Amino acid sequence: MSHILILPGDGIGPEIVQEAVRVLRAAEQRFGLDISLDEAPVGGAAYDLHGDPLPQSTLDKARAADAILFGSIGGPKWDTIERDKRPERGLLRLRSSLGLFANLRPAILFPQLADASSLKPEVVSGLDILIVRELTGGIYFGQPRGIREENGERVGFNTDVYSESEMRRIAKVAFELAGQRNNKVCSVDKANVLEVTELWKEVVTDAAKDYPNIELSHMYVDNAAMQLVRAPKQFDVIVTGNLFGDILSDEAAMLTGSIGMLPSASLDENRKGLYEPCHGSAPDIAGQGIANPLATIMSLAMLMRYSLERGDVADAIQAAVEQVLDQGLRTADIYTEGTRKVSTEEMGAAVAEAL
Amino acid sequence: MSHILILPGDGIGPEIVQEAVRVLRAAEQRFGLDISLDEAPVGGAAYDLHGDPLPQSTLDKARAADAILFGSIGGPKWDTIERDKRPERGLLRLRSSLGLFANLRPAILFPQLADASSLKPEVVSGLDILIVRELTGGIYFGQPRGIREENGERVGFNTDVYSESEMRRIAKVAFELAGQRNNKVCSVDKANVLEVTELWKEVVTDAAKDYPNIELSHMYVDNAAMQLVRAPKQFDVIVTGNLFGDILSDEAAMLTGSIGMLPSASLDENRKGLYEPCHGSAPDIAGQGIANPLATIMSLAMLMRYSLERGDVADAIQAAVEQVLDQGLRTADIYTEGTRKVSTEEMGAAVAEAL
Ligand SMILES: CC(C)[C@H](C(=O)O)[C@@H](O)C(=O)O
Ligand SMILES: CC(C)[C@H](C(=O)O)[C@@H](O)C(=O)O
Repeated sequence: MSHILILPGDGIGPEIVQEAVRVLRAAEQRFGLDISLDEAPVGGAAYDLHGDPLPQSTLDKARAADAILFGSIGGPKWDTIERDKRPERGLLRLRSSLGLFANLRPAILFPQLADASSLKPEVVSGLDILIVRELTGGIYFGQPRGIREENGERVGFNTDVYSESEMRRIAKVAFELAGQRNNKVCSVDKANVLEVTELWKEVVTDAAKDYPNIELSHMYVDNAAMQLVRAPKQFDVIVTGNLFGDILSDEAAMLTGSIGMLPSASLDENRKGLYEPCHGSAPDIAGQGIANPLATIMSLAMLMRYSLERGDVADAIQAAVEQVLDQGLRTADIYTEGTRKVSTEEMGAAVAEAL
Repeated sequence: MSHILILPGDGIGPEIVQEAVRVLRAAEQRFGLDISLDEAPVGGAAYDLHGDPLPQSTLDKARAADAILFGSIGGPKWDTIERDKRPERGLLRLRSSLGLFANLRPAILFPQLADASSLKPEVVSGLDILIVRELTGGIYFGQPRGIREENGERVGFNTDVYSESEMRRIAKVAFELAGQRNNKVCSVDKANVLEVTELWKEVVTDAAKDYPNIELSHMYVDNAAMQLVRAPKQFDVIVTGNLFGDILSDEAAMLTGSIGMLPSASLDENRKGLYEPCHGSAPDIAGQGIANPLATIMSLAMLMRYSLERGDVADAIQAAVEQVLDQGLRTADIYTEGTRKVSTEEMGAAVAEAL
């Protein structure tokens, strides 16, 4: 029996997660899976209930689960509360508490949605990049941090810090995954300026020695931001730190033009993971039943693949998504003339049906 | 009499700077300018001569000058020398020693070169963004920094740090410049995670009170990296810190598809400045006479505008560049069928001639 914890969160989170659960139920039936589901509040919803974006009871359930399916968090309602209680803090603490150091963010262009990209078709057709972002270290969590008084004015400061072992373990994840893809890893740093990434480059280079079949290259982050726009298909796997990964994975996602389609996984040492769509909580359209549930449904597919080791179920979910796209079903965000505009629920039901 | 210091640097630096000097000579004649020119080594070239990428004599000349025209630095030849002696360090020390805190990086799409972009024409046509990057603070220069031993392994660390006054002065530059453009400033931060940018957001918001005509917005850096790809024309002026500015300005530059066309200015409190093309030293094509000198020539135009307060000369240089583009002259990097491929020198001569 596998235990999956559902964390719907805020904004469109509950709606899209509900459709992923619908697909999960269909997968259970078809594959005879033995799954127990539990649910808990997180983010703004949890703050409203318990005064904390990550209540102890939610964290306990998360620790006990084999995998977590996460919706999205945040919204203007909680933008002005004290910083430590904001929805994002709940997510950051969850990543850190569970040791979810490996964030996998695919940027894949669906041929059915090629028009949605702001890039020329020849530049992005067939795009399939995997960004491997370190998620529990770097400047996100580095100490010291804060705002201090100095010479009569305030000074803000943060610390970017990585140990060799943190660098090595994320590099290994990237090499392993590249081995299942096109055997190319590009490590992104700013080694010409920052000592922390100078060490990063050295450690990644050293870790590569155990992977003779992988072709490792290095790129400065400013150049990577350019190359993603110029010729994104040159990349297979990109591995980088927490902050650069945040920026580059969003840039890469947007190359596809349909961020409503991109899932992500955040894994610990034992491949237990948290799975969430790359898009945010979109408070402006929450509750209208028009959000795109496909990124969350494909996050469920990643959950099957990585945490439940059911690549077969993952493939089936992925195929079901492709099928409904081929049938011309589209939520509003990916709608174009000549296709059929459907609601969140209709989309979820169609994928479950296809499965 | 105005004193201009020429720092050709490495790679294609000397070739492109030479053409900018040719244009400068033509401008002198046409406008009867009174200019004294001096030249000094910097970067790898200076290291080879003096064992230092920024020799004291070069720094002294730079301090004495009214403005500096800079080529480009770096190359594989110096990649393995000790870090403090690398070409980039010379540039960083120069920026810091001269207090060149305001880096202006326009990303402009030339209608003549619209095809060069990897983005769809409708997404980028007419693009005209100005990125204002803080250049002497933040994680580039923050202390403490280095690599230390901890629990039997190495740990790399850097410090991102900004004082209120540093934030305020760069914000003011952005507001002033926006006032001469479309009155919109977008400040980019990661205030949901980093305290240093939380303070940034607060200080920029406060500084905006003196500029009631400017419309100020805020964006997280990951979203900004996305929005630049999705809909870059939503931006007028973007203001941000050193590291985010490095990444976003290169991304924005690449949206135009012709980074060989983009100039930059780095100004101090008194608008004394260093002017350089956005592209690098391109060691692979150095010495072949095929590099594009236009970014350097337009850097000269910025020099005229900001440091010499000769907007008229700047406009004339800019017009001369447009004219040779209209005539169909192209260096190899921007060549397309139906245009005339010319050398670095032919391009420089044509602009000088048009002037
Ligand atoms: C919400 C925010 C803290 C988060 C991050 O920066 O990691 C988000 O942007 C992401 O990428 O998951
Ligand atoms: C060469 C390097 C140190 C420099 C920087 O990062 O500032 C360059 O990328 C730039 O943007 O001018």
